Amino acid sequence: MTIPLTVLPDNRQLHVAPGTTILKAAQTGGIDITATCGGRGRCTSCRVKFVRGGIPPPTIMDELQLGDDLVREGYRLSCQCHLTEPVTVQIAPPLDEQAFQILGADRRVQDVARVVIDAGISKQVLKVSLPREEHHQTSDLEELLNAAGRSTEEVSPALLRDLPATLRESGGEVTVTTFGRQVLAVEKGDTALLKFGLAVDIGTTSVVSTLIELESGEQLASVSSLNPQAVFGGDLMSRIAFAQFNPANLRKLQTRIIGLLNQHVEEIVRQSGVLAKWIYKVVVVGNTCMHHILLGIDPSYVGLAPYAPVMRHPLVLPARDLFLKVNPEARVCLLPIVAGFVGADAVGVALATRIYESPETRIAVDIGTNGEVLLGSKAHLWACSAPAGPALEGAQIRHGMRGALGAIDRVAIGDDVEVHTIGEAAPLGICGSGIIDALAGMLDAGIIDHTGLIQVENRDRLPPPLGERVVARGEERQFILVRAGEGGAASEIVLTQDDVRQVQLAKGAIASGVAMLQHIAGIPGEQIAELMLAGGFGNYISIRSALRIGLVPSLPPEKIRYVGNAASLGAQLCLVSEPERQRAERIARSIEHVSLAAHPDFQDIFVECMNFPRP
Amino acid sequence: MTIPLTVLPDNRQLHVAPGTTILKAAQTGGIDITATCGGRGRCTSCRVKFVRGGIPPPTIMDELQLGDDLVREGYRLSCQCHLTEPVTVQIAPPLDEQAFQILGADRRVQDVARVVIDAGISKQVLKVSLPREEHHQTSDLEELLNAAGRSTEEVSPALLRDLPATLRESGGEVTVTTFGRQVLAVEKGDTALLKFGLAVDIGTTSVVSTLIELESGEQLASVSSLNPQAVFGGDLMSRIAFAQFNPANLRKLQTRIIGLLNQHVEEIVRQSGVLAKWIYKVVVVGNTCMHHILLGIDPSYVGLAPYAPVMRHPLVLPARDLFLKVNPEARVCLLPIVAGFVGADAVGVALATRIYESPETRIAVDIGTNGEVLLGSKAHLWACSAPAGPALEGAQIRHGMRGALGAIDRVAIGDDVEVHTIGEAAPLGICGSGIIDALAGMLDAGIIDHTGLIQVENRDRLPPPLGERVVARGEERQFILVRAGEGGAASEIVLTQDDVRQVQLAKGAIASGVAMLQHIAGIPGEQIAELMLAGGFGNYISIRSALRIGLVPSLPPEKIRYVGNAASLGAQLCLVSEPERQRAERIARSIEHVSLAAHPDFQDIFVECMNFPRP
Repeated sequence: MTIPLTVLPDNRQLHVAPGTTILKAAQTGGIDITATCGGRGRCTSCRVKFVRGGIPPPTIMDELQLGDDLVREGYRLSCQCHLTEPVTVQIAPPLDEQAFQILGADRRVQDVARVVIDAGISKQVLKVSLPREEHHQTSDLEELLNAAGRSTEEVSPALLRDLPATLRESGGEVTVTTFGRQVLAVEKGDTALLKFGLAVDIGTTSVVSTLIELESGEQLASVSSLNPQAVFGGDLMSRIAFAQFNPANLRKLQTRIIGLLNQHVEEIVRQSGVLAKWIYKVVVVGNTCMHHILLGIDPSYVGLAPYAPVMRHPLVLPARDLFLKVNPEARVCLLPIVAGFVGADAVGVALATRIYESPETRIAVDIGTNGEVLLGSKAHLWACSAPAGPALEGAQIRHGMRGALGAIDRVAIGDDVEVHTIGEAAPLGICGSGIIDALAGMLDAGIIDHTGLIQVENRDRLPPPLGERVVARGEERQFILVRAGEGGAASEIVLTQDDVRQVQLAKGAIASGVAMLQHIAGIPGEQIAELMLAGGFGNYISIRSALRIGLVPSLPPEKIRYVGNAASLGAQLCLVSEPERQRAERIARSIEHVSLAAHPDFQDIFVECMNFPRP
Repeated sequence: MTIPLTVLPDNRQLHVAPGTTILKAAQTGGIDITATCGGRGRCTSCRVKFVRGGIPPPTIMDELQLGDDLVREGYRLSCQCHLTEPVTVQIAPPLDEQAFQILGADRRVQDVARVVIDAGISKQVLKVSLPREEHHQTSDLEELLNAAGRSTEEVSPALLRDLPATLRESGGEVTVTTFGRQVLAVEKGDTALLKFGLAVDIGTTSVVSTLIELESGEQLASVSSLNPQAVFGGDLMSRIAFAQFNPANLRKLQTRIIGLLNQHVEEIVRQSGVLAKWIYKVVVVGNTCMHHILLGIDPSYVGLAPYAPVMRHPLVLPARDLFLKVNPEARVCLLPIVAGFVGADAVGVALATRIYESPETRIAVDIGTNGEVLLGSKAHLWACSAPAGPALEGAQIRHGMRGALGAIDRVAIGDDVEVHTIGEAAPLGICGSGIIDALAGMLDAGIIDHTGLIQVENRDRLPPPLGERVVARGEERQFILVRAGEGGAASEIVLTQDDVRQVQLAKGAIASGVAMLQHIAGIPGEQIAELMLAGGFGNYISIRSALRIGLVPSLPPEKIRYVGNAASLGAQLCLVSEPERQRAERIARSIEHVSLAAHPDFQDIFVECMNFPRP
């Protein structure tokens, strides 16, 4: 016996076994419902609105995450709601993903790192004589290699398929593209000037692809998107849990990311006019889990102690093996991995920040859902993971949203609250940079104390406009950032006590990562020459606010520098320079991985880092 | 506007543009009709019977190929019949393909050529320690390679997919299979004794696959089938014409052969109990066209002067690239090619016959639809193609059939005709060995003269039972081998004047190939130490008859030897021995290709070879 479930807006009808959660039923039926926390009732992303049929009584999780108002309006968390009768539900309308403020790099690569362009892709224009002799026969391929002055036979059968027609239709005038000993393409006529590559940074939450001309290093196009795997879990552990011991789910995740990369290629082709077949090299960075999933490698054990990766060495494989729709013979180069939670993205950050050649000790922090911290100099490099979760990207926050149109991205708190929104639109929610600003302002104003507690009891001490925004509703403490109607807001936007706790957990993870590496390396703050903040996200947060809430250690602000999306930049360096790609392998091997959880001092440091710095 | 066409026995309804031939319409609609001559009205294989709708008037080709009786019964050649009104046709029931007498090799490989077994596939049983350290992480792969004492990283991502589960479920006790530097498999527990390989000989007409245990060289199973590409053309030129400048048709041919090989694997797995995943090495021989088609390489120019192949070097590629359902990482080794019409099969013949190390001059003749002749010794080897066509395999012969149940395979002519059929069943038709016997007997009895003319005018000089079998029907001379009712035959079986001509063309091609190589090399018959007859077909023909009709040059019978399916044997040698496989490349490079058609003396020699030897 099954129960009919209708899902709007697509009006899809599913037949579901009684007791199945709506989230599970939708996912099984191929309908995407975002479940950032992995369906554990710990965020609001999977909420649905009941349109027809009986609305089930709210669970504790519904109350906690959605609040009274939404619960009254018929919203429920689809992960918590077990189907018992026919209903129709509406998936909460998604945000406008096109408008996301994810950092795409925007400078010529070699301007950043002064590398010599040497992408390893070579094009030779040849005049090939066609086989003429019936006796003493040669072959098309032999004549081609002979004209190229090469003896290599590393040519895939797929490339040979069209070789005879290409040679004859061009009268033997062709351009041969090679990468090392591998022949990648034989094209009619002279195409020597058409040499492009793609740098790809696959983050847990966002994915950035950048098209680069391989002679000049010039960026021609860049596309960023949310990682579409997020509907199956917002953080790495949720996503690993989804794929764990479940090959079909792993396949789903793999298909999602490959599909997205192909959308990126399409979009880049559209933007730049560069044909996909002229893309001969692709460099990919990403954390270990993203790397394994892209390759279809079972990540189950990356999620279980001792969190070992399946492989760490750099890989080079043809694009057709990944069904990537660039030139099918293009070489896809995956950078090496350091450990289960310190991936190729950290190697990219090390490469791009040049921390490995620094005479003084530096710190590089890659802020993201699965953050990483690097500390050291040319003498030695340590690295650890700092699993901040998606709170700093606006997820798992009551009114959190990503950096889209209408998101509050700047907050100033004086006698009252002033907010700025992306696109200066009516406020819809708050994104990461806004949250950090807000908490910094709330600390300065005394709205929260250093333990993070919202000061309901002391609200009378605040300037009246602020005091009125500090409320207790039922058990919950809230700070009202925007009232319904303010600035055109359709409904109020609050930061709850739990939101503050989520940010404390996130910034605690990053700050304790930095502190632990300093502790283990024995490097006090005054010996740190520089802290480099990296991440697709880092460009938009205020350094002052980051310092105020203790996201970064207490250093003079001039020692803190944005370095942009360093992981992507590392990929771009390896794209335009084979020596850089070889260097990446040496760096990966030289980094000492530090496991924080296993360290006896970690708990104390983490708890300390959860608190906010006293002024 | 389209015309409905119904095809029995499957009762498929097609909608066809007026004027399309039934053959074309059926092929477009995915219905197989065998067209041995490539749809040129030169054989009977594509005949259909009209069941409903108007029967079109017979064409000249219908009359010529099918004869009055079949034409009267509503049979037509589907390649000649253009659709003008709705009809229902029945495809002539296919022969029983299971019963074909195609030679599968049947001896232990090393007994034949005394090779040392060294297949290159190595299995190591290991105890791998799983990564235990959170600090200083390694990876599953590094621990595996470390236990194996190897540093190679030639491991495909596909193999890594299951590595973590394999290692953990087996407690680290695994067997690693390698081929050179390439890791092919990691299996739980001890599978060291399970090492198998497949030798595949892809002929124009038949395909033989042999399963071999790679330590002993023992043959465990062998499967042969007709090449399913034959429905698109019986000889190479028809098949090239089908694929020429038509990628969709090329794809069809490729899909056919890969599908057949996978059927072979299934059948072999069933026969032997060996699992497909234990097959780690595959060696393939075949003529250049079969080789190119298997790889999906455009063979268009192999069919155009100067008939150059696209590539000649030996190839090794993973089975998954060919969608072969053995172990997906198994290495498929294609032997090298000599020229457009002297393929890897000829190299296999050279290898298996050891002609390349013979002190005296020998000849190896590979009889098949696309025959090849090798002549020489360890000093020098010449090779040419001898395109006999499928007549010697019973195709393009009025009552010809392949060596299936009921085929006449032996004919003795004394005062009357005596025939033997395969399975001693009621005669259905005549296969190649029967045709050769019949012609030899007809020559001896004076039923045909040395020009091949059936002696209708002189039939009175024959013993009366024979004389009565020599008839002229309309313009056509015939010899009645079996009358309707004789030996239970449902209808009469004749050899027509045109049948005799087809055999003359076939044997002329082979004999003139041998004669031309002797001519070019300057080797008279008395210097020939031995002539080796090879081919899946060769085991069943009478040497005496072959000599009588001049299929082979006039040598003492003791100098003529069957060597079985030498091409397949060559593949088997390379399967069990890597040194043999390397030798194959040296042999291929050392063979001098001779183009017969270009030679000024060829026409004269060919015409001479068309005639039968005088007694």
